[in-house]
Amino acid sequence: MNNYMLTIQYDGGRYKGWQRLGSGENTIQGKIEQVLSELVGKQTEIIGSSRTDAGVHAFAQIANVKLDGKHSEMEIKKYLNRYLPQDISIKEVTLVHERFHARYNTKDKTYLYKIWNEDYTNPFMRKFSMHVEKKLNIDNMKIAGQYFIGEHDFTAFSNAKSKKKTMVREIYSLDINENNGFVEIRVRGNGFLYNMVRKMVGTLIEVGLGQIEAEAIPTILHSKERNQTGIMADSAGLYLERIDF
Amino acid sequence: MNNYMLTIQYDGGRYKGWQRLGSGENTIQGKIEQVLSELVGKQTEIIGSSRTDAGVHAFAQIANVKLDGKHSEMEIKKYLNRYLPQDISIKEVTLVHERFHARYNTKDKTYLYKIWNEDYTNPFMRKFSMHVEKKLNIDNMKIAGQYFIGEHDFTAFSNAKSKKKTMVREIYSLDINENNGFVEIRVRGNGFLYNMVRKMVGTLIEVGLGQIEAEAIPTILHSKERNQTGIMADSAGLYLERIDF
Repeated sequence: MNNYMLTIQYDGGRYKGWQRLGSGENTIQGKIEQVLSELVGKQTEIIGSSRTDAGVHAFAQIANVKLDGKHSEMEIKKYLNRYLPQDISIKEVTLVHERFHARYNTKDKTYLYKIWNEDYTNPFMRKFSMHVEKKLNIDNMKIAGQYFIGEHDFTAFSNAKSKKKTMVREIYSLDINENNGFVEIRVRGNGFLYNMVRKMVGTLIEVGLGQIEAEAIPTILHSKERNQTGIMADSAGLYLERIDF
Repeated sequence: MNNYMLTIQYDGGRYKGWQRLGSGENTIQGKIEQVLSELVGKQTEIIGSSRTDAGVHAFAQIANVKLDGKHSEMEIKKYLNRYLPQDISIKEVTLVHERFHARYNTKDKTYLYKIWNEDYTNPFMRKFSMHVEKKLNIDNMKIAGQYFIGEHDFTAFSNAKSKKKTMVREIYSLDINENNGFVEIRVRGNGFLYNMVRKMVGTLIEVGLGQIEAEAIPTILHSKERNQTGIMADSAGLYLERIDF
Protein backbone atom coordinates (compact mmCIF):
# COMPACT_ATOMS: atom_id res chain seq x y z
CA MET A 1 0.00 0.00 0.00
CA ASN A 2 1.10 3.55 -0.68
CA ASN A 3 0.69 6.26 1.93
CA TYR A 4 -0.48 9.62 0.61
CA MET A 5 -0.56 12.97 2.37
CA LEU A 6 -3.45 15.27 1.41
CA THR A 7 -3.32 19.05 1.92
CA ILE A 8 -6.90 20.22 2.19
CA GLN A 9 -8.52 23.65 2.15
CA TYR A 10 -12.13 24.20 3.16
CA ASP A 11 -14.87 26.63 3.98
CA GLY A 12 -16.29 24.86 7.04
CA GLY A 13 -19.43 27.03 7.10
CA ARG A 14 -21.96 24.32 6.29
CA TYR A 15 -20.19 21.34 7.89
CA LYS A 16 -20.39 19.75 11.34
CA GLY A 17 -16.63 19.92 11.53
CA TRP A 18 -13.84 17.69 10.27
CA GLN A 19 -14.53 14.44 12.03
CA ARG A 20 -16.79 11.78 10.52
CA LEU A 21 -19.87 11.20 12.66
CA GLY A 22 -22.83 8.89 12.05
CA SER A 23 -23.97 8.32 8.47
CA GLY A 24 -25.83 11.25 6.98
CA GLU A 25 -23.92 13.79 9.08
CA ASN A 26 -22.25 16.43 6.96
CA THR A 27 -18.53 16.40 7.81
CA ILE A 28 -15.43 17.15 5.82
CA GLN A 29 -13.75 13.85 6.57
CA GLY A 30 -16.96 12.08 5.58
CA LYS A 31 -17.16 13.91 2.22
CA ILE A 32 -13.57 13.15 1.31
CA GLU A 33 -13.81 9.49 2.35
CA GLN A 34 -16.96 9.10 0.27
CA VAL A 35 -15.25 10.37 -2.91
CA LEU A 36 -12.03 8.41 -2.25
CA SER A 37 -14.06 5.23 -1.66
CA GLU A 38 -15.72 5.74 -5.05
CA LEU A 39 -12.32 6.18 -6.69
CA VAL A 40 -10.78 3.00 -5.28
CA GLY A 41 -13.96 0.92 -5.20
CA LYS A 42 -13.94 0.13 -1.50
CA GLN A 43 -14.58 1.75 1.87
CA THR A 44 -11.58 3.97 2.63
CA GLU A 45 -10.66 5.83 5.80
CA ILE A 46 -8.46 8.89 6.10
CA ILE A 47 -6.64 10.19 9.17
CA GLY A 48 -6.83 13.93 9.78
CA SER A 49 -4.32 15.93 11.76
CA SER A 50 -6.81 18.24 13.43
CA ARG A 51 -10.46 17.79 14.35
CA THR A 52 -11.69 21.24 13.44
CA ASP A 53 -15.06 22.22 14.98
CA ALA A 54 -18.33 22.82 13.20
CA GLY A 55 -18.04 25.95 11.06
CA VAL A 56 -14.25 26.26 11.35
CA HIS A 57 -12.22 26.68 8.14
CA ALA A 58 -8.83 25.37 7.03
CA PHE A 59 -6.15 26.71 4.73
CA ALA A 60 -4.09 23.56 5.09
CA GLN A 61 -5.59 20.64 6.98
CA ILE A 62 -3.37 17.57 6.60
CA ALA A 63 -4.61 14.00 6.27
CA ASN A 64 -3.06 10.71 5.24
CA VAL A 65 -4.60 7.72 3.52
CA LYS A 66 -3.31 4.31 2.46
CA LEU A 67 -4.23 3.23 -1.03
CA ASP A 68 -2.97 0.62 -3.43
CA GLY A 69 -0.69 2.11 -6.07
CA LYS A 70 -3.23 2.04 -8.90
CA HIS A 71 -3.63 5.84 -9.14
CA SER A 72 -0.98 8.54 -9.43
CA GLU A 73 -0.93 11.51 -7.05
CA MET A 74 -2.25 13.73 -9.85
CA GLU A 75 -5.09 11.32 -10.62
CA ILE A 76 -6.14 11.22 -6.96
CA LYS A 77 -6.04 15.02 -6.71
CA LYS A 78 -8.01 15.52 -9.94
CA TYR A 79 -10.65 12.94 -9.03
CA LEU A 80 -11.18 14.44 -5.58
CA ASN A 81 -11.37 18.00 -6.91
CA ARG A 82 -13.82 16.97 -9.60
CA TYR A 83 -16.26 15.21 -7.25
CA LEU A 84 -15.88 17.12 -3.97
CA PRO A 85 -18.21 20.08 -3.35
CA GLN A 86 -16.78 23.53 -4.20
CA ASP A 87 -16.20 24.40 -0.55
CA ILE A 88 -13.60 21.64 -0.08
CA SER A 89 -10.50 21.51 -2.23
CA ILE A 90 -7.37 19.40 -2.38
CA LYS A 91 -4.28 21.54 -2.82
CA GLU A 92 -1.77 18.72 -2.91
CA VAL A 93 -1.47 14.94 -2.88
CA THR A 94 2.01 13.68 -2.02
CA LEU A 95 3.42 10.17 -1.64
CA VAL A 96 4.95 9.97 1.86
CA HIS A 97 6.76 7.43 4.03
CA GLU A 98 4.58 4.47 4.95
CA ARG A 99 4.90 5.32 8.63
CA PHE A 100 3.73 8.93 8.32
CA HIS A 101 0.61 9.42 10.47
CA ALA A 102 -1.20 12.77 10.17
CA ARG A 103 -2.38 12.78 13.78
CA TYR A 104 0.43 11.14 15.73
CA ASN A 105 3.22 12.93 13.88
CA THR A 106 1.80 16.42 14.34
CA LYS A 107 4.36 18.58 16.16
CA ASP A 108 2.55 21.88 16.30
CA LYS A 109 -0.42 23.71 14.85
CA THR A 110 -1.09 27.28 13.86
CA TYR A 111 -4.56 28.79 13.94
CA LEU A 112 -5.52 32.16 12.49
CA TYR A 113 -8.49 34.18 13.69
CA LYS A 114 -9.92 37.06 11.64
CA ILE A 115 -11.91 39.85 13.27
CA TRP A 116 -13.50 42.50 11.03
CA ASN A 117 -13.21 45.62 13.17
CA GLU A 118 -15.10 48.39 11.37
CA ASP A 119 -18.50 49.93 12.11
CA TYR A 120 -19.94 48.49 8.86
CA THR A 121 -20.10 44.90 7.64
CA ASN A 122 -17.64 43.42 5.17
CA PRO A 123 -19.88 41.88 2.48
CA PHE A 124 -17.08 39.65 1.15
CA MET A 125 -15.85 38.34 4.49
CA ARG A 126 -19.08 38.14 6.45
CA LYS A 127 -18.93 34.33 6.46
CA PHE A 128 -15.17 34.24 7.02
CA SER A 129 -14.62 36.56 9.98
CA MET A 130 -16.23 37.77 13.19
CA HIS A 131 -17.59 41.29 13.07
CA VAL A 132 -16.73 43.50 16.07
CA GLU A 133 -18.08 47.02 15.48
CA LYS A 134 -16.49 48.84 18.39
CA LYS A 135 -12.84 49.75 17.90
CA LEU A 136 -10.59 47.26 19.71
CA ASN A 137 -7.67 48.39 21.84
CA ILE A 138 -4.94 46.38 20.12
CA ASP A 139 -2.19 47.40 22.55
CA ASN A 140 -4.12 45.93 25.46
CA MET A 141 -4.90 42.79 23.48
CA LYS A 142 -1.18 42.34 22.77
CA ILE A 143 -0.34 42.64 26.45
CA ALA A 144 -3.03 40.08 27.31
CA GLY A 145 -1.92 37.74 24.52
CA GLN A 146 1.59 37.45 25.96
CA TYR A 147 0.22 35.82 29.13
CA PHE A 148 -0.90 32.80 27.09
CA ILE A 149 2.62 32.04 25.91
CA GLY A 150 4.32 29.08 27.58
CA GLU A 151 3.01 25.95 29.25
CA HIS A 152 -0.31 26.33 31.08
CA ASP A 153 -3.27 24.31 32.21
CA PHE A 154 -5.96 25.55 29.81
CA THR A 155 -8.99 24.06 31.59
CA ALA A 156 -10.56 27.52 31.91
CA PHE A 157 -10.23 28.00 28.15
CA SER A 158 -11.68 24.63 27.20
CA ASN A 159 -15.17 23.31 26.88
CA ALA A 160 -16.66 20.68 29.16
CA LYS A 161 -16.53 18.27 26.20
CA SER A 162 -12.71 18.21 26.49
CA LYS A 163 -11.80 14.95 28.17
CA LYS A 164 -8.05 14.78 27.78
CA LYS A 165 -5.48 13.07 29.98
CA THR A 166 -3.90 16.44 30.55
CA MET A 167 -5.24 19.95 30.06
CA VAL A 168 -1.71 21.35 29.84
CA ARG A 169 -0.74 22.79 26.47
CA GLU A 170 2.18 24.90 25.36
CA ILE A 171 1.66 28.07 23.31
CA TYR A 172 4.77 29.05 21.34
CA SER A 173 3.58 32.34 19.91
CA LEU A 174 0.55 34.60 19.74
CA ASP A 175 0.69 37.53 17.34
CA ILE A 176 -1.91 40.22 16.77
CA ASN A 177 -1.82 42.34 13.64
CA GLU A 178 -4.03 45.00 12.11
CA ASN A 179 -4.55 44.51 8.40
CA ASN A 180 -6.92 46.72 6.32
CA GLY A 181 -9.79 46.75 8.78
CA PHE A 182 -9.09 43.26 10.12
CA VAL A 183 -7.51 42.31 13.42
CA GLU A 184 -5.74 39.00 12.87
CA ILE A 185 -4.72 36.77 15.75
CA ARG A 186 -2.28 33.98 14.92
CA VAL A 187 -1.55 31.40 17.61
CA ARG A 188 0.90 28.52 17.41
CA GLY A 189 1.12 25.73 19.96
CA ASN A 190 1.73 22.04 20.48
CA GLY A 191 -1.99 21.35 20.71
CA PHE A 192 -5.35 22.91 21.48
CA LEU A 193 -8.27 21.72 23.60
CA TYR A 194 -11.85 21.71 22.34
CA ASN A 195 -12.94 25.35 21.68
CA MET A 196 -9.67 26.62 23.21
CA VAL A 197 -8.70 29.04 20.43
CA ARG A 198 -12.22 30.47 20.26
CA LYS A 199 -12.30 31.05 24.04
CA MET A 200 -8.84 32.62 23.99
CA VAL A 201 -9.87 34.94 21.14
CA GLY A 202 -13.20 35.78 22.79
CA THR A 203 -11.33 36.74 25.94
CA LEU A 204 -8.86 38.84 23.95
CA ILE A 205 -11.80 40.60 22.28
CA GLU A 206 -13.24 41.45 25.69
CA VAL A 207 -9.83 42.81 26.69
CA GLY A 208 -9.86 44.90 23.51
CA LEU A 209 -13.32 46.22 24.44
CA GLY A 210 -12.21 47.10 27.97
CA GLN A 211 -14.43 44.48 29.62
CA ILE A 212 -11.57 42.34 30.96
CA GLU A 213 -8.20 43.64 32.19
CA ALA A 214 -5.18 42.38 30.25
CA GLU A 215 -3.56 41.50 33.57
CA ALA A 216 -6.48 39.22 34.49
CA ILE A 217 -5.36 36.46 32.10
CA PRO A 218 -2.97 34.71 34.55
CA THR A 219 -5.71 34.73 37.21
CA ILE A 220 -8.21 33.22 34.78
CA LEU A 221 -5.69 30.53 33.76
CA HIS A 222 -4.93 29.68 37.40
CA SER A 223 -8.62 29.59 38.33
CA LYS A 224 -9.30 26.68 35.93
CA GLU A 225 -12.89 27.95 36.01
CA ARG A 226 -14.63 27.96 32.64
CA ASN A 227 -16.98 30.81 33.62
CA GLN A 228 -14.04 33.20 34.17
CA THR A 229 -13.21 33.63 30.48
CA GLY A 230 -14.78 35.93 27.94
CA ILE A 231 -17.19 34.93 25.20
CA MET A 232 -16.47 32.16 22.73
CA ALA A 233 -15.60 33.81 19.41
CA ASP A 234 -17.61 32.78 16.29
CA SER A 235 -16.43 29.70 14.41
CA ALA A 236 -16.70 31.74 11.16
CA GLY A 237 -13.48 33.65 11.96
CA LEU A 238 -11.29 30.63 12.72
CA TYR A 239 -8.89 28.95 10.28
CA LEU A 240 -6.54 26.02 10.77
CA GLU A 241 -3.61 27.64 9.00
CA ARG A 242 -0.67 25.31 9.24
CA ILE A 243 0.49 22.02 10.72
CA ASP A 244 4.13 21.23 11.35
CA PHE A 245 5.45 17.66 11.57
CA MET B 1 -31.72 70.29 1.42
CA ASN B 2 -28.38 68.72 2.28
CA ASN B 3 -26.45 66.72 -0.29
CA TYR B 4 -24.80 63.55 1.05
CA MET B 5 -22.23 61.33 -0.61
CA LEU B 6 -22.47 57.62 0.21
CA THR B 7 -19.52 55.22 -0.18
CA ILE B 8 -21.00 51.77 -0.68
CA GLN B 9 -19.51 48.28 -0.64
CA TYR B 10 -21.42 45.25 -1.88
CA ASP B 11 -21.34 41.61 -2.80
CA GLY B 12 -23.39 41.83 -6.01
CA GLY B 13 -23.84 38.05 -6.22
CA ARG B 14 -27.59 37.92 -5.67
CA TYR B 15 -28.55 41.28 -7.23
CA LYS B 16 -29.63 42.29 -10.72
CA GLY B 17 -26.99 45.00 -10.66
CA TRP B 18 -26.93 48.51 -9.27
CA GLN B 19 -29.69 50.22 -11.16
CA ARG B 20 -33.27 50.25 -9.88
CA LEU B 21 -35.59 48.39 -12.24
CA GLY B 22 -39.30 47.68 -11.90
CA SER B 23 -40.71 47.10 -8.42
CA GLY B 24 -39.86 43.72 -6.97
CA GLU B 25 -36.57 43.53 -8.88
CA ASN B 26 -33.65 42.96 -6.58
CA THR B 27 -31.14 45.79 -7.18
CA ILE B 28 -28.67 47.54 -4.95
CA GLN B 29 -29.98 51.02 -5.68
CA GLY B 30 -33.50 49.76 -4.97
CA LYS B 31 -32.48 48.28 -1.59
CA ILE B 32 -30.74 51.45 -0.45
CA GLU B 33 -33.57 53.72 -1.60
CA GLN B 34 -36.07 51.55 0.24
CA VAL B 35 -34.23 51.89 3.57
CA LEU B 36 -33.51 55.62 3.08
CA SER B 37 -37.19 56.21 2.26
CA GLU B 38 -38.15 54.53 5.52
CA LEU B 39 -35.68 56.73 7.42
CA VAL B 40 -36.94 60.05 6.03
CA GLY B 41 -40.58 59.04 5.67
CA LYS B 42 -40.94 59.71 1.96
CA GLN B 43 -39.92 58.25 -1.40
CA THR B 44 -36.22 59.06 -1.89
CA GLU B 45 -34.00 58.61 -4.93
CA ILE B 46 -30.24 58.25 -5.00
CA ILE B 47 -27.86 58.85 -7.89
CA GLY B 48 -25.14 56.24 -8.41
CA SER B 49 -21.86 56.86 -10.15
CA SER B 50 -21.65 53.51 -11.91
CA ARG B 51 -24.33 51.11 -13.10
CA THR B 52 -22.63 47.86 -12.18
CA ASP B 53 -24.03 44.75 -13.93
CA ALA B 54 -25.86 41.84 -12.35
CA GLY B 55 -23.47 39.92 -10.10
CA VAL B 56 -20.70 42.55 -10.11
CA HIS B 57 -19.27 43.69 -6.78
CA ALA B 58 -18.09 47.06 -5.47
CA PHE B 59 -15.47 48.11 -2.95
CA ALA B 60 -16.45 51.76 -3.26
CA GLN B 61 -19.48 52.63 -5.32
CA ILE B 62 -20.35 56.31 -4.89
CA ALA B 63 -23.86 57.74 -4.75
CA ASN B 64 -25.37 61.05 -3.71
CA VAL B 65 -28.73 61.82 -2.18
CA LYS B 66 -30.50 65.02 -1.14
CA LEU B 67 -32.16 64.93 2.26
CA ASP B 68 -33.44 67.52 4.66
CA GLY B 69 -31.01 68.16 7.49
CA LYS B 70 -32.92 66.21 10.14
CA HIS B 71 -30.36 63.39 10.45
CA SER B 72 -26.63 63.55 11.00
CA GLU B 73 -24.21 61.72 8.71
CA MET B 74 -23.59 59.16 11.47
CA GLU B 75 -27.33 58.61 11.97
CA ILE B 76 -27.85 58.01 8.25
CA LYS B 77 -24.93 55.58 8.12
CA LYS B 78 -26.07 53.67 11.22
CA TYR B 79 -29.68 53.43 10.05
CA LEU B 80 -28.67 52.15 6.63
CA ASN B 81 -26.22 49.60 8.03
CA ARG B 82 -28.80 48.37 10.52
CA TYR B 83 -31.56 47.78 7.96
CA LEU B 84 -29.67 46.92 4.78
CA PRO B 85 -28.95 43.23 4.08
CA GLN B 86 -25.48 41.99 5.12
CA ASP B 87 -24.20 41.96 1.54
CA ILE B 88 -24.52 45.75 1.18
CA SER B 89 -22.72 48.08 3.53
CA ILE B 90 -22.24 51.81 3.84
CA LYS B 91 -18.62 52.70 4.55
CA GLU B 92 -19.08 56.45 4.73
CA VAL B 93 -21.70 59.17 4.62
CA THR B 94 -20.28 62.63 3.97
CA LEU B 95 -21.96 66.03 3.58
CA VAL B 96 -20.86 67.42 0.19
CA HIS B 97 -21.42 70.53 -1.92
CA GLU B 98 -25.02 70.89 -3.07
CA ARG B 99 -23.91 70.69 -6.70
CA PHE B 100 -22.01 67.42 -6.36
CA HIS B 101 -23.56 64.83 -8.72
CA ALA B 102 -22.26 61.25 -8.46
CA ARG B 103 -22.79 60.45 -12.14
CA TYR B 104 -22.04 63.72 -13.94
CA ASN B 105 -18.97 64.55 -11.84
CA THR B 106 -17.26 61.19 -12.30
CA LYS B 107 -13.84 61.72 -13.88
CA ASP B 108 -12.54 58.18 -14.01
CA LYS B 109 -13.24 54.69 -12.75
CA THR B 110 -11.08 51.79 -11.69
CA TYR B 111 -12.24 48.21 -11.97
CA LEU B 112 -10.45 45.21 -10.48
CA TYR B 113 -10.82 41.68 -11.82
CA LYS B 114 -9.76 38.63 -9.78
CA ILE B 115 -8.87 35.35 -11.46
CA TRP B 116 -8.09 32.33 -9.25
CA ASN B 117 -5.41 30.54 -11.25
CA GLU B 118 -4.71 27.24 -9.51
CA ASP B 119 -5.76 23.70 -10.43
CA TYR B 120 -7.98 23.48 -7.33
CA THR B 121 -10.88 25.70 -6.25
CA ASN B 122 -10.54 28.45 -3.66
CA PRO B 123 -13.35 27.71 -1.18
CA PHE B 124 -13.26 31.23 0.27
CA MET B 125 -13.21 33.14 -3.00
CA ARG B 126 -15.33 30.92 -5.21
CA LYS B 127 -18.09 33.55 -5.33
CA PHE B 128 -15.64 36.44 -5.62
CA SER B 129 -13.33 35.40 -8.45
CA MET B 130 -13.29 33.49 -11.74
CA HIS B 131 -11.54 30.14 -11.60
CA VAL B 132 -9.11 29.41 -14.47
CA GLU B 133 -7.42 26.05 -13.85
CA LYS B 134 -4.82 26.12 -16.62
CA LYS B 135 -1.75 28.24 -15.84
CA LEU B 136 -2.01 31.63 -17.56
CA ASN B 137 0.92 33.13 -19.45
CA ILE B 138 1.09 36.45 -17.63
CA ASP B 139 3.84 37.91 -19.81
CA ASN B 140 1.67 37.53 -22.89
CA MET B 141 -1.33 38.97 -21.07
CA LYS B 142 0.73 42.02 -20.10
CA ILE B 143 1.77 42.57 -23.72
CA ALA B 144 -1.86 42.27 -24.84
CA GLY B 145 -3.07 44.57 -22.06
CA GLN B 146 -0.88 47.44 -23.26
CA TYR B 147 -2.78 47.59 -26.56
CA PHE B 148 -5.90 48.70 -24.69
CA ILE B 149 -4.24 51.80 -23.30
CA GLY B 150 -5.21 55.09 -24.92
CA GLU B 151 -8.31 56.22 -26.78
CA HIS B 152 -10.09 53.56 -28.82
CA ASP B 153 -13.48 52.72 -30.23
CA PHE B 154 -14.48 49.81 -27.97
CA THR B 155 -17.48 48.59 -30.03
CA ALA B 156 -15.89 45.13 -30.33
CA PHE B 157 -15.59 44.94 -26.54
CA SER B 158 -19.13 46.07 -25.80
CA ASN B 159 -22.44 44.32 -25.77
CA ALA B 160 -25.25 45.04 -28.24
CA LYS B 161 -27.14 46.62 -25.33
CA SER B 162 -24.65 49.53 -25.36
CA LYS B 163 -26.38 52.42 -27.08
CA LYS B 164 -24.05 55.33 -26.43
CA LYS B 165 -23.48 58.44 -28.52
CA THR B 166 -19.88 57.41 -28.86
CA MET B 167 -18.18 54.08 -28.36
CA VAL B 168 -14.81 55.77 -27.85
CA ARG B 169 -13.34 55.45 -24.37
CA GLU B 170 -9.91 56.19 -22.99
CA ILE B 171 -8.02 53.62 -20.90
CA TYR B 172 -5.38 55.24 -18.68
CA SER B 173 -3.80 52.12 -17.24
CA LEU B 174 -4.12 48.35 -17.22
CA ASP B 175 -2.01 46.44 -14.71
CA ILE B 176 -1.75 42.70 -14.25
CA ASN B 177 -0.32 41.25 -11.05
CA GLU B 178 0.11 37.79 -9.60
CA ASN B 179 -0.86 37.61 -5.95
CA ASN B 180 -0.91 34.31 -3.97
CA GLY B 181 -2.62 32.22 -6.62
CA PHE B 182 -4.67 35.10 -8.02
CA VAL B 183 -4.11 37.01 -11.22
CA GLU B 184 -5.46 40.52 -10.66
CA ILE B 185 -6.25 42.85 -13.54
CA ARG B 186 -6.79 46.50 -12.63
CA VAL B 187 -8.05 48.84 -15.33
CA ARG B 188 -8.60 52.58 -15.04
CA GLY B 189 -10.34 54.68 -17.67
CA ASN B 190 -12.68 57.59 -18.27
CA GLY B 191 -15.63 55.27 -18.74
CA PHE B 192 -16.63 51.75 -19.71
CA LEU B 193 -19.31 50.43 -22.06
CA TYR B 194 -21.76 47.72 -21.06
CA ASN B 195 -19.82 44.46 -20.37
CA MET B 196 -16.59 46.11 -21.62
CA VAL B 197 -14.33 45.13 -18.71
CA ARG B 198 -15.60 41.55 -18.73
CA LYS B 199 -14.97 41.22 -22.49
CA MET B 200 -11.50 42.78 -22.15
CA VAL B 201 -10.65 40.38 -19.30
CA GLY B 202 -12.10 37.38 -21.17
CA THR B 203 -9.93 38.24 -24.16
CA LEU B 204 -6.86 38.63 -21.93
CA ILE B 205 -7.61 35.22 -20.41
CA GLU B 206 -7.68 33.68 -23.88
CA VAL B 207 -4.35 35.36 -24.61
CA GLY B 208 -3.03 33.85 -21.37
CA LEU B 209 -4.26 30.42 -22.49
CA GLY B 210 -2.63 30.79 -25.91
CA GLN B 211 -5.94 30.91 -27.79
CA ILE B 212 -5.55 34.51 -29.00
CA GLU B 213 -2.27 36.20 -29.96
CA ALA B 214 -1.37 39.23 -27.85
CA GLU B 215 -0.71 41.13 -31.07
CA ALA B 216 -4.28 40.49 -32.26
CA ILE B 217 -5.76 43.09 -29.89
CA PRO B 218 -5.33 46.11 -32.21
CA THR B 219 -6.93 44.14 -35.06
CA ILE B 220 -9.88 43.19 -32.85
CA LEU B 221 -10.31 46.84 -31.75
CA HIS B 222 -10.20 48.09 -35.36
CA SER B 223 -12.63 45.42 -36.55
CA LYS B 224 -15.43 46.76 -34.29
CA GLU B 225 -16.84 43.23 -34.57
CA ARG B 226 -18.21 41.82 -31.34
CA ASN B 227 -17.57 38.21 -32.37
CA GLN B 228 -13.81 38.83 -32.66
CA THR B 229 -13.18 39.04 -28.91
CA GLY B 230 -12.68 36.24 -26.41
CA ILE B 231 -15.21 35.03 -23.87
CA MET B 232 -16.99 37.33 -21.44
CA ALA B 233 -15.39 36.79 -18.02
CA ASP B 234 -17.70 35.87 -15.08
CA SER B 235 -19.37 38.73 -13.21
CA ALA B 236 -18.24 37.09 -9.93
CA GLY B 237 -14.63 38.24 -10.44
CA LEU B 238 -15.39 41.91 -11.16
CA TYR B 239 -15.24 44.74 -8.60
CA LEU B 240 -15.84 48.46 -9.02
CA GLU B 241 -12.81 49.53 -7.00
CA ARG B 242 -12.60 53.29 -7.12
CA ILE B 243 -14.19 56.38 -8.60
CA ASP B 244 -12.34 59.65 -9.00
CA PHE B 245 -14.12 63.00 -9.25
